[in-house]
Amino acid sequence: MVSSPGGRPAPPDRIAGLIERMLAGDRLALARLITQVENRTQAVPAIMKAVHARAQAAYVVGVTGPPGAGKSTIVDRLTALLRAEGERVGVIAVDPSSPFTGGAVLGDRIRMQVHALDPGVFIRSMATRGSLGGLARATGDVIRLLAASGFGLILVETVGVGQTELDIMKLADTTIVVLVPESGDAVQTMKAGLMEAADIFAVNKADRAGAHGLIAELKFAAHLHYASPTSPKDIDWQIPVLATEAQGDVGVAELLAEVRRHRALLTESGALSARRRVRRREEFKGLLVEELRIALEARLGTGPLEAIVEDVERGTVDPYSAAEAILVRLKLE
Amino acid sequence: MVSSPGGRPAPPDRIAGLIERMLAGDRLALARLITQVENRTQAVPAIMKAVHARAQAAYVVGVTGPPGAGKSTIVDRLTALLRAEGERVGVIAVDPSSPFTGGAVLGDRIRMQVHALDPGVFIRSMATRGSLGGLARATGDVIRLLAASGFGLILVETVGVGQTELDIMKLADTTIVVLVPESGDAVQTMKAGLMEAADIFAVNKADRAGAHGLIAELKFAAHLHYASPTSPKDIDWQIPVLATEAQGDVGVAELLAEVRRHRALLTESGALSARRRVRRREEFKGLLVEELRIALEARLGTGPLEAIVEDVERGTVDPYSAAEAILVRLKLE
Repeated sequence: MVSSPGGRPAPPDRIAGLIERMLAGDRLALARLITQVENRTQAVPAIMKAVHARAQAAYVVGVTGPPGAGKSTIVDRLTALLRAEGERVGVIAVDPSSPFTGGAVLGDRIRMQVHALDPGVFIRSMATRGSLGGLARATGDVIRLLAASGFGLILVETVGVGQTELDIMKLADTTIVVLVPESGDAVQTMKAGLMEAADIFAVNKADRAGAHGLIAELKFAAHLHYASPTSPKDIDWQIPVLATEAQGDVGVAELLAEVRRHRALLTESGALSARRRVRRREEFKGLLVEELRIALEARLGTGPLEAIVEDVERGTVDPYSAAEAILVRLKLE
Repeated sequence: MVSSPGGRPAPPDRIAGLIERMLAGDRLALARLITQVENRTQAVPAIMKAVHARAQAAYVVGVTGPPGAGKSTIVDRLTALLRAEGERVGVIAVDPSSPFTGGAVLGDRIRMQVHALDPGVFIRSMATRGSLGGLARATGDVIRLLAASGFGLILVETVGVGQTELDIMKLADTTIVVLVPESGDAVQTMKAGLMEAADIFAVNKADRAGAHGLIAELKFAAHLHYASPTSPKDIDWQIPVLATEAQGDVGVAELLAEVRRHRALLTESGALSARRRVRRREEFKGLLVEELRIALEARLGTGPLEAIVEDVERGTVDPYSAAEAILVRLKLE
């Protein structure tokens, strides 16, 4: 059996009951299953197998950017607009940041409490538990749980645009990168990464000094990226740059319109399903490596493999030669 | 053959020549081999096998803490003290941080240029290239290259104390956590993690307001940690808390004295070799998983495994069932 480490697993019959209630729309059952997934308990494979058929239906919009850019306010305003049209909205706020900068996401969530009373909105915060690779995997599984539970549009918010955040953004169909005029220097140092991650730029707090300069700079960079032979060509899309003042609800409707234009283009061109195929392959490879790690862990500790590990431990054999020896034994070499 | 991805590999005979010159003390050869290791080229296994016998000799001191705490200045001053005693010093400055906060380490290195002219000092900056797990692994390999090249004391500096930084600090025999009075709030939110990571606290910029309070707080926390049943008991060590003003060279000699006291205790008690055994095992497991990933990658793409992956890609099979099927085929289940 494929298994995952850590956390308190719930008994299988209890899990089956939770899944049944979750698929029938029970929020408490959904919350409990998310906790299982977040803690990577042994119940995860059974849960994800059971919801698989209904887990593909949602459209995923990522919102990322540096701390203090106003991502949560944008997510809040987008949620209000989507709700007004009857869309059921899932919100996942992921905080993979260093403990030295952490905590902001949870604090910001307080503002979302107006939506927390709305049965058409489900909000969940997630933070790092051990491995960052595990966090991206757990986020993907939570997206699938929300989709299976009938939330048709899922907003995934992450703080920062480091490697983990970019990995999490790969789960999104449309990614909004939120910047503020103060982000100017950061934009300089990581322009290429931003162009790769973003489908839409929102320059928030656009009433502040420097906003016009940043917008002009991003538009120019987006134009260069569009013309570049290395930019994706599966859709005809030049990254739009929008000015927003989310706090005053300025520009958010236009932002949502751009999300819809991007979605329509992806859907009509067939790029959405092609990209999702690639994403499923990549996510699967990550899962496979993790399961291999667990299977390997179970084999070390005793027997012939342990003898090799002990040589490494003593320092008598170098790790690369030992790894080679183990791969040969596993017939993977 | 075990192999690693990415980067431009140098031809094998050229690598052999570089290793020979590096072991004879050639700095340029060392720098070029570090580049091979940093880029994770296919030459890495051959390089690490060749230097293995001489790669264990160095003592590794980690220096971590939030941006702006003055880590680089402390590393600079420690280097000067160590050089005055004739110690050969390697310095590795690792910046795993998000691109939004990055760049500081490289800038700070400019201050180290006085040592860059000293043949008894070797300084290298490293930044994230793709995976963070890869960064910790590359840092470990660079430590071993510097050790093999005759640098007896290696200072590893990282920005921040997030998960990756903590992983990198696991490579150190003694870890100094540098804080400043402004870090007070951060200390509150991550006290447990700090106590786990630190062997020594340095409260730098100790002339600023709030320093006394932070020192008192850390001393109390260190005392509680010392008395806790979960703290490591292989040596009798209560984390000391030192006040430093590295810019004015205040307290740095005392800091070095504490490093030496920690080292002596680790060595005499046998804890140093026991801890290094554990570390070699853990590092090896990480390497093994990475090599398994590469071997697996080579097997996907064609044949029976590819058929399973394509089912996942199409969404007709859920990833957990597919992972199970692949592990069974690999006889790892």
